[in-house]
Amino acid sequence: MKLLNSLGPNPRLVRMFAEEKGLELATDEIDIMAGENRQPSYLEKNPGGQLPALQLDDGSVLAETIAICEYLEELHPQPALIGATPEQRGAARMWTRRIEQKIVQPLTDGFRFAEGLAMFKDRLHVIPQAADDLKATAQEGLTWLDGQLGSKPFIAGDRFSLADIVLYSFLDFGRGVGQPIDPSNKNLAAWFERVTERPSADASLHAAARAGGMRA
Amino acid sequence: MKLLNSLGPNPRLVRMFAEEKGLELATDEIDIMAGENRQPSYLEKNPGGQLPALQLDDGSVLAETIAICEYLEELHPQPALIGATPEQRGAARMWTRRIEQKIVQPLTDGFRFAEGLAMFKDRLHVIPQAADDLKATAQEGLTWLDGQLGSKPFIAGDRFSLADIVLYSFLDFGRGVGQPIDPSNKNLAAWFERVTERPSADASLHAAARAGGMRA
Repeated sequence: MKLLNSLGPNPRLVRMFAEEKGLELATDEIDIMAGENRQPSYLEKNPGGQLPALQLDDGSVLAETIAICEYLEELHPQPALIGATPEQRGAARMWTRRIEQKIVQPLTDGFRFAEGLAMFKDRLHVIPQAADDLKATAQEGLTWLDGQLGSKPFIAGDRFSLADIVLYSFLDFGRGVGQPIDPSNKNLAAWFERVTERPSADASLHAAARAGGMRA
Repeated sequence: MKLLNSLGPNPRLVRMFAEEKGLELATDEIDIMAGENRQPSYLEKNPGGQLPALQLDDGSVLAETIAICEYLEELHPQPALIGATPEQRGAARMWTRRIEQKIVQPLTDGFRFAEGLAMFKDRLHVIPQAADDLKATAQEGLTWLDGQLGSKPFIAGDRFSLADIVLYSFLDFGRGVGQPIDPSNKNLAAWFERVTERPSADASLHAAARAGGMRA
């Protein structure tokens, strides 16, 4: 099993998920800046053309970030990052989904259609005239989530889960591309600091740059 | 356990999923046309404000379509619509995700920001200037998927899965709002006819209108 890995918040969140589980995954680095993921040698592995993907030992390839995390959890249930019961898993999946729809999708498309336009314009159907509204939508989603979070330590309640990892990876990306957390969202700002203190946050950030692939 | 149910492709796909499993779910009908889902009595159950949601016997509410389907599969594994093994589940989740990102999201936002604008403009951050490009993006996704489908009977291969149900529900919705399958996508058009012939396709369509809630 090896992770087809690259820059970007999606591979980073899979690395952070694996770090939290203490998993060591071999990696192949794919150069997305050079468009290696749009070349036939990658597309025959993952016709979706995106990173990351997980190449299994039988040669088949599992793509899509959340599907990869679900697969890793099934093979390595402890510690449970999706959940240990159907109800826990339901809650983590629900919150992950809300975060993806209300925050991650508009944040990333807002980036792709503006700051990322030069990179993405030949790879995706870009919609530059939507960029400002998409960024505003993501911020509205964050303000909604701040109210939902309240005094809970983590997104799904008392336990750290996939929902936190998805949100963290994309907000850490967002603050680097002009979409930071508005400081008036105090619950989220405090949550971001809490997650930053986890060893997996730093380790997953630097994993791609380490020789020999992914450490944990 | 009861389904908080309404018009629309998301509740329909959960009903179709349940029909395929032979599950009988009690329903409460929520009038989304009248905005009942944006009223406090619904928002305290599902602060995301969307339909469907699944109210569990302990009173907790599980929202988000895919999370609900995963939960139903965990409680009722047969017939497997996500999968019977980690690898099967991985494949179904991967294809579901690709369909959501490449087709469902741009198709539904294309609708919400154009034909659905009067209904959604006070409920969502609408981006009317993106509607035409979103619809075009969804059609490009369908053409990509047509090539991926090829001669396979179903999206994830030989077996009918959640990926087919998600795609079917949204394409059946799409053809009613000016976003039909381009007939040049012959593989998808044939797939659509195959899925239409399943009893669950018709039963799920009419379920919301039946007295006494959802039959199966």
